[in-house]
Amino acid sequence: MLSVIGIGPGSEAMMTQEAIAALQEADIVVGYKTYTHLVKKWTADKEVIKTGMCKEIERCQIAIDLAEQGKNVAMVCSGDAGIYGMAGLILELVSKQRRNVQVRVVSGITASIASAALLGAPLMHDFCHISLSDLLTPWTVIEKRIIAAAQADFVICFYNPRSRGREGHLAKAFELMTPWKAETTPVGVVKAAGRKKQEKWVTTFSQMDFSQVDMTSLVIVGNQSTYLSDGLMITPRGYVI
Amino acid sequence: MLSVIGIGPGSEAMMTQEAIAALQEADIVVGYKTYTHLVKKWTADKEVIKTGMCKEIERCQIAIDLAEQGKNVAMVCSGDAGIYGMAGLILELVSKQRRNVQVRVVSGITASIASAALLGAPLMHDFCHISLSDLLTPWTVIEKRIIAAAQADFVICFYNPRSRGREGHLAKAFELMTPWKAETTPVGVVKAAGRKKQEKWVTTFSQMDFSQVDMTSLVIVGNQSTYLSDGLMITPRGYVI
Ligand SMILES: C[S@@+](CC[C@H](N)C(=O)[O-])C[C@H]1O[C@@H](n2cnc3c(N)ncnc32)[C@H](O)[C@@H]1O
Ligand SMILES: C[S@@+](CC[C@H](N)C(=O)[O-])C[C@H]1O[C@@H](n2cnc3c(N)ncnc32)[C@H](O)[C@@H]1O
Repeated sequence: MLSVIGIGPGSEAMMTQEAIAALQEADIVVGYKTYTHLVKKWTADKEVIKTGMCKEIERCQIAIDLAEQGKNVAMVCSGDAGIYGMAGLILELVSKQRRNVQVRVVSGITASIASAALLGAPLMHDFCHISLSDLLTPWTVIEKRIIAAAQADFVICFYNPRSRGREGHLAKAFELMTPWKAETTPVGVVKAAGRKKQEKWVTTFSQMDFSQVDMTSLVIVGNQSTYLSDGLMITPRGYVI
Repeated sequence: MLSVIGIGPGSEAMMTQEAIAALQEADIVVGYKTYTHLVKKWTADKEVIKTGMCKEIERCQIAIDLAEQGKNVAMVCSGDAGIYGMAGLILELVSKQRRNVQVRVVSGITASIASAALLGAPLMHDFCHISLSDLLTPWTVIEKRIIAAAQADFVICFYNPRSRGREGHLAKAFELMTPWKAETTPVGVVKAAGRKKQEKWVTTFSQMDFSQVDMTSLVIVGNQSTYLSDGLMITPRGYVI
């Protein structure tokens, strides 16, 4: 059995019952070292295999091999495992290599949802997730999605907004949205949600300071109705009140 | 204190630690009766105020009044409270009426994430949420978003896909997406995720049977790379394997 577990953004409080149970039942825990560290409370008595960043295929292959040998393996991912996480890669490998492994995906609170709760209620209307990482997606595809989402007035959550080698992507994304997002459109940023170094702030589309955003940040850009009130970011659902 | 709590799609297993703690700490629980029922295990010793459907403003007003009187109030919502839930309306009312209430939003597993885990890993790439309910949103806005999302090849999650008085909306949405979604595009449907009557199935864009979908269903339409394997719906992240 291979459980691909979303551990939520970082705090124990945001883990689901199911995720904790799956960790407790596991023989072996596999994951990127930041994530295995976040769940160490539940895995003290277990074998833990930590891998570095950008070793995704290797990490998944180890987990699949162990599960095929009959171990109960827990692969941990931050947020939800099925959102820019390892659930897809695990299922792709198992299916392509015709491996004899039972895979279970255990849902987690993804970064956008955790960040939204800290910012107020910015996701109350139709929204989308866009990753600004072009490691696995051509930048032209990303651009097309940014423009379409802005044009149709979605609230937009940017994952992987900025990181070494991609310093300019977020600024470029804002430039592409300029025709449709008013200068006063609220923008919320949450860094390291649920972790020790958690930070959050709200600003507006034209006042956005990209230099404060890093790879542990989630950026939410409001729609035409989103407003700021007492430092909270609120997107109305449409009730007449 | 007013905690607006996302209880997840239905099962206790998908509740977060934080949601359970917030329920346990509350003096009074307020919510639509289906949801107060789902958490009755945690609220046996508490006052529970159940309201009917479509009484959202009234329900929120009751919760705000009680919290302002000094009670610790838990408002329960299915899924995540900030996604087509009550978090936004609560914050809007508190802000517009200048009420003296501290509001905390407690994140939950939203229907799309729970459904995705049951279907495989359909949300592994950029995706969006669109509600097909035109009770609070003009249908023209919804149409615009459907077209934009299909055109830019997002994976699309449809909330409120079909209900009394809106029988045709899902079929209409598929019609609008036809120019961009191939006939073979995988589609996944999950009904009552995490609840007793849970059902799920996968089909393709051209084979979709709208009559099986109801208001407790979540519909996920894949992107150009999504495929079906062993009954699972997988959207590749882009790794070369
Ligand atoms: C490879 S993705 C993983 C997403 C994860 N599976 C999820 O569902 O949240 C990494 C990106 O997620 C976002 N992210 C992950 N954890 C976060 C946190 N605790 N706070 C804010 N953003 C986070 C950041 O945008 C980061 O660049
Ligand atoms: C008013 S919205 C509430 C959404 C909720 N706040 C969430 O985050 O999941 C109701 C819609 O959510 C979806 N939904 C809610 N609970 C569900 C469940 N257990 N299984 C499948 N879909 C669900 C359905 O599309 C339904 O029409």
